[in-house]
Amino acid sequence: MSRVAVVGATGAVGREMLAVLEQRCFPVDELRLLASDRSAGGSLRALGADHEVRAAAADAFSGVDLALFSAGSRIAMELAPAARAAGALVVDNSSAFRMRPDCPLVIPEINGETLAAHRGLIANPNCSTILLCMAVAPLVELGGLQGIVACTYQAVSGAGTRAVEELRRQEAQEARGEALTAEIFPAPISHNVIPFVQALQEDGFSVEETKVRDETRRILGLPGLAVSATCVRVPVLRAHSATVHAGLERPVSAAALYAALSDRPGIQAAQEGIPTPRDAAGGDDVWVGRVRIDRVFRPGLALWCVMDQLRKGAALNAVQIAELALGCPRGA
Amino acid sequence: MSRVAVVGATGAVGREMLAVLEQRCFPVDELRLLASDRSAGGSLRALGADHEVRAAAADAFSGVDLALFSAGSRIAMELAPAARAAGALVVDNSSAFRMRPDCPLVIPEINGETLAAHRGLIANPNCSTILLCMAVAPLVELGGLQGIVACTYQAVSGAGTRAVEELRRQEAQEARGEALTAEIFPAPISHNVIPFVQALQEDGFSVEETKVRDETRRILGLPGLAVSATCVRVPVLRAHSATVHAGLERPVSAAALYAALSDRPGIQAAQEGIPTPRDAAGGDDVWVGRVRIDRVFRPGLALWCVMDQLRKGAALNAVQIAELALGCPRGA
Repeated sequence: MSRVAVVGATGAVGREMLAVLEQRCFPVDELRLLASDRSAGGSLRALGADHEVRAAAADAFSGVDLALFSAGSRIAMELAPAARAAGALVVDNSSAFRMRPDCPLVIPEINGETLAAHRGLIANPNCSTILLCMAVAPLVELGGLQGIVACTYQAVSGAGTRAVEELRRQEAQEARGEALTAEIFPAPISHNVIPFVQALQEDGFSVEETKVRDETRRILGLPGLAVSATCVRVPVLRAHSATVHAGLERPVSAAALYAALSDRPGIQAAQEGIPTPRDAAGGDDVWVGRVRIDRVFRPGLALWCVMDQLRKGAALNAVQIAELALGCPRGA
Repeated sequence: MSRVAVVGATGAVGREMLAVLEQRCFPVDELRLLASDRSAGGSLRALGADHEVRAAAADAFSGVDLALFSAGSRIAMELAPAARAAGALVVDNSSAFRMRPDCPLVIPEINGETLAAHRGLIANPNCSTILLCMAVAPLVELGGLQGIVACTYQAVSGAGTRAVEELRRQEAQEARGEALTAEIFPAPISHNVIPFVQALQEDGFSVEETKVRDETRRILGLPGLAVSATCVRVPVLRAHSATVHAGLERPVSAAALYAALSDRPGIQAAQEGIPTPRDAAGGDDVWVGRVRIDRVFRPGLALWCVMDQLRKGAALNAVQIAELALGCPRGA
């Protein structure tokens, strides 16, 4: 018997969570859709029925077994305690709790065993972190991972549905020969790339780039791992890509990494061909290709990876966490 | 008195060469526009007059003082000897001669002094090489450059005018809900990124990535420099971008690199703000921003750089080479 609340149900990730719950036949006896006051009041079709969207509030969690949060850090900090107090397991997609020692930060295929220590609250990692960790995890054992330089090519949907609308609007403006207006991003994203994903910090790295470092260290269990990222937004609708140049302790061949990746769930080891965001969009797998011996890190490897950041980078990973934590049989 | 031939005059770079010659008031007494048989026969407006486009052939260079080639390696190898035999100085934009010891490979702001040894043939570097070298050149002296990991975000116009047409066509197909057709690129480039710029080699790197390594070593005078690149095409019309994570011998602060860049011609040191391809498109400068102490290379720096690859990455650099080699007064 499982009563499920989705907080932020009308957002890009929230809607994807509903789709994933249905596709994986997650056992849902009652579904409670919660959203901001602005989005509440309407109705949303999910799991074969229409559901009222209610305002997310502290009293909305009574009787809930599982609360999937995708509503940002502020809402998570405000409402997760209420959901836990009501007895729900909280899986939160924001960065609010990711670095708290008492809150596991989990990619089930990599550190699912850390779930056991949860106290009613589990954090879902940043989407770029998930992409990177899924691609390099085998290198921890295979080669003694020492350092990672990662550069991302991040889809606009990672910034929410309004960001997708902004790209579409700019494309229409461009077609009409009008000046482009930008509200979500600091510059037009149509026919452009912007090396700015979340605010820049004092040290010149962005918040996103720092999350990638800190979360990767925690998930891979390598607190001293050197991780330097440049996170860049590109005019792709869906699916994040990244380049990885990794330094190792011991040489690893491309064939050995492909073989290790092929043995892991959730990975498409693309030894042939060139995976692109259009290949990964809408699917569950992380695609890894272009694995080659690096030219700077010796020993080291370079590779290319792609993943639908709304699926494995957010909604799917959250539902996988819930399946593992609640002992649900895994669905489709 | 200067009679100038432009070989490949109807291509994306050729047209830009004509614009640059005019904008810089390059002394042109006679202009000869040459192109493939397919493009010959028509007329092209350049430097305030209409010019017949003639078929590029060995007998087309009599009396020519300067031949600017932008017609690919095959044509360059076929016709550059004839142009030189006719007494012309050849500046070639293809990769045909770039690694030949008797042919200088020149970015005037960096290694202009190597021009003096030319024997009638000078090579213009690859566009990504120019972007990278312009951004990191000060680090050779400042920090003792040791290694570079560079990931590019390359505009479709780098693959020629037909590639731009392909992006436009795919955008129209997408708007009409039709399937996207790809001819120039190996996958749709609309709302996509493709980690494939020129063919892949046996070692897993692409030809483009290898050019970036080999040419950067030659231009910076560092034959042992470690350079590992991942070159990626993005749906940008004009201006290439790149991330650089560089390893140094000695620590260099971001402020010191910005100061050194500010002292160099052809650079916009963007200490504030986030330069994007739309900022660089149509202009002559290389923009460098987001300089920060790296997190993997210690000591090291990370940075972001952007440049109109048809201007400084090709046409402008070629004309600057010609100005320097022929002792022309620099124009506008």
